[in-house]
Amino acid sequence: MTFESKIKTIEWVDGYSRMVDQTVIPYEYKFINVTSGDDMYNAIKTMIVRGAPAIGIAGAHGVVLYAQALEHSSSVEEFKAKLIEKAQYMKTSRPTAVNLMWACEKQIEIIKNSNSDIKGIIEELTENAIKLENEDIEINKKIGEYGSEVVPKGATILTHCNAGALATVGYGTALGVVRSAYAKDNTIQVFADETRPRQQGARITTFELTMDKIPVTLITDGMCSYFMKKGMIDMVVVGADRIAANGDTANKIGTYTVAIAAKYHNIPFYIAAPLSTIDTSIKTGAEIPIEERSHEEVTHINGKRICAEGVNIINPGFDVTPNELIAGIITEKGILRPNYNQSIAEAFNN
Amino acid sequence: MTFESKIKTIEWVDGYSRMVDQTVIPYEYKFINVTSGDDMYNAIKTMIVRGAPAIGIAGAHGVVLYAQALEHSSSVEEFKAKLIEKAQYMKTSRPTAVNLMWACEKQIEIIKNSNSDIKGIIEELTENAIKLENEDIEINKKIGEYGSEVVPKGATILTHCNAGALATVGYGTALGVVRSAYAKDNTIQVFADETRPRQQGARITTFELTMDKIPVTLITDGMCSYFMKKGMIDMVVVGADRIAANGDTANKIGTYTVAIAAKYHNIPFYIAAPLSTIDTSIKTGAEIPIEERSHEEVTHINGKRICAEGVNIINPGFDVTPNELIAGIITEKGILRPNYNQSIAEAFNN
Repeated sequence: MTFESKIKTIEWVDGYSRMVDQTVIPYEYKFINVTSGDDMYNAIKTMIVRGAPAIGIAGAHGVVLYAQALEHSSSVEEFKAKLIEKAQYMKTSRPTAVNLMWACEKQIEIIKNSNSDIKGIIEELTENAIKLENEDIEINKKIGEYGSEVVPKGATILTHCNAGALATVGYGTALGVVRSAYAKDNTIQVFADETRPRQQGARITTFELTMDKIPVTLITDGMCSYFMKKGMIDMVVVGADRIAANGDTANKIGTYTVAIAAKYHNIPFYIAAPLSTIDTSIKTGAEIPIEERSHEEVTHINGKRICAEGVNIINPGFDVTPNELIAGIITEKGILRPNYNQSIAEAFNN
Repeated sequence: MTFESKIKTIEWVDGYSRMVDQTVIPYEYKFINVTSGDDMYNAIKTMIVRGAPAIGIAGAHGVVLYAQALEHSSSVEEFKAKLIEKAQYMKTSRPTAVNLMWACEKQIEIIKNSNSDIKGIIEELTENAIKLENEDIEINKKIGEYGSEVVPKGATILTHCNAGALATVGYGTALGVVRSAYAKDNTIQVFADETRPRQQGARITTFELTMDKIPVTLITDGMCSYFMKKGMIDMVVVGADRIAANGDTANKIGTYTVAIAAKYHNIPFYIAAPLSTIDTSIKTGAEIPIEERSHEEVTHINGKRICAEGVNIINPGFDVTPNELIAGIITEKGILRPNYNQSIAEAFNN
């Protein structure tokens, strides 16, 4: 059973990409049309679109937009060479989430292997972008279905950041699990971590859950252990930006702290992510590049400074939760369990 | 060796109480004169003055202010009865920090036991308030001295909330340890948790440390584990609002999460607090009342809403860190170590 969500985060329409502007949620819910590759690069970098699966699709759209701009290249060879360069550049718009690299690579394969003319290649890239877009929702519904099987009746599910419809094309990964569970049992509820510095939990998760009328309680990031100790949290489900071959998982900064707290209270901690988030080319989480973001994200909220001048800042955008803290990785091929080296390899081989 | 800090948070001057207004830090550093008992009650409740030791002194001042207003009572008996009622009321301005109850009780003892006339009792209460005020700084310097002995050379000390000069009359408890350690070794530095919802770490700890030119890095509450894993945190020192006879410690919400993270990374986690914060009348932390604060503290920052409408809020002001996570309790009588039932009893008997 799936739940119908109203949200479609990113969509290819009529020659350009249309996306929800996530920088103004929850104050406004508005759409932006992105019509060039460079604008897409900036939309990803400035987090107008964010969430690992969503920026994968954004990357695929971006390659199509670059292709359109190169339509009048003097030869197919020149077109291909320049477009591959642009697609490689698109991958650098953010460093941690691997779905971006995965989706751009999917487009690069088409560019390399196509025997069509320029127009034909652009059509193939467009079709592929739309295919990835549609697949994303289908994958999330499968993740939701598998995940819902491990949600206890009447459960309170804690999540961190936003791995919802707004982090994907629609439906969500972690919040896909919530939606599928809620469709079966409307007594479940969500606790959402605020997720400083950028407050995706406060801004985006509360927005999309209240929009879909799923009960949600906002807590500050330090509070999770308090509620766990009180027996008020039954499980944790979060998304992922990159998962190593051994199951170590990079996700929004603060996730690792929640995972440690869950372990201390014997509460199961799950990752929900498509297989495209798993990077089998790297052995452990130590190899995942961690994005450093601007100091202002920590020192300012809504444009107002919240701390003294003269303070030092380090602002890692992600942390890595080691596999030993993860009860399962919920994917479109079922829930992968430890030993992750083995279960991940099997998921890719089947 | 002690460090000279410029900050005096609360002071009895010429018939009234003068305090730093902590609601406007770091934007302004200004003083407020509190001239009536009811104004003191509100100053404590609205956190114009905050920090367990500081609100103890504020309570003692408040009793003097109530005494002044009752100066023209028709008899000593009436004066005493009415003032004790007011002193009991003052204790209810905030529920968790026990120093408030402790200081008001010290004043109540004087009221009950004095053989002076009304004017004489007011003088005795004033003298006692000033004595408690001066003792607070001396106690903090002793805490600082004992604590500095367990700070490794060049250490990075993580703290949560503000247990600094601005949480006490001056010098601070957790930040007293920092100041004493810094006086001996100016290569140490502080990492300060932002401490949502009220951001005392971002607002107050960064303010007082930059004012005293002690290096401080501001991090968001979810980041602590990331830096612990990287080996960038050598110890944690926090204050306390109430410590049970078994060492379980109530402190600002989020402290318990930091303590769990420290344990997971084998990093020593210390409490720094005067003996007046220890409530030997209660056996464990389960008996400590936890203040529930307003929803707006979570949903708004600097007056601006940060989340969707329709979200639920629970806002506990404190959590309880169980004794098993605490490496030591740094007091003016030395560092108490597990078994805390025994070491706390000994500290009170010596």
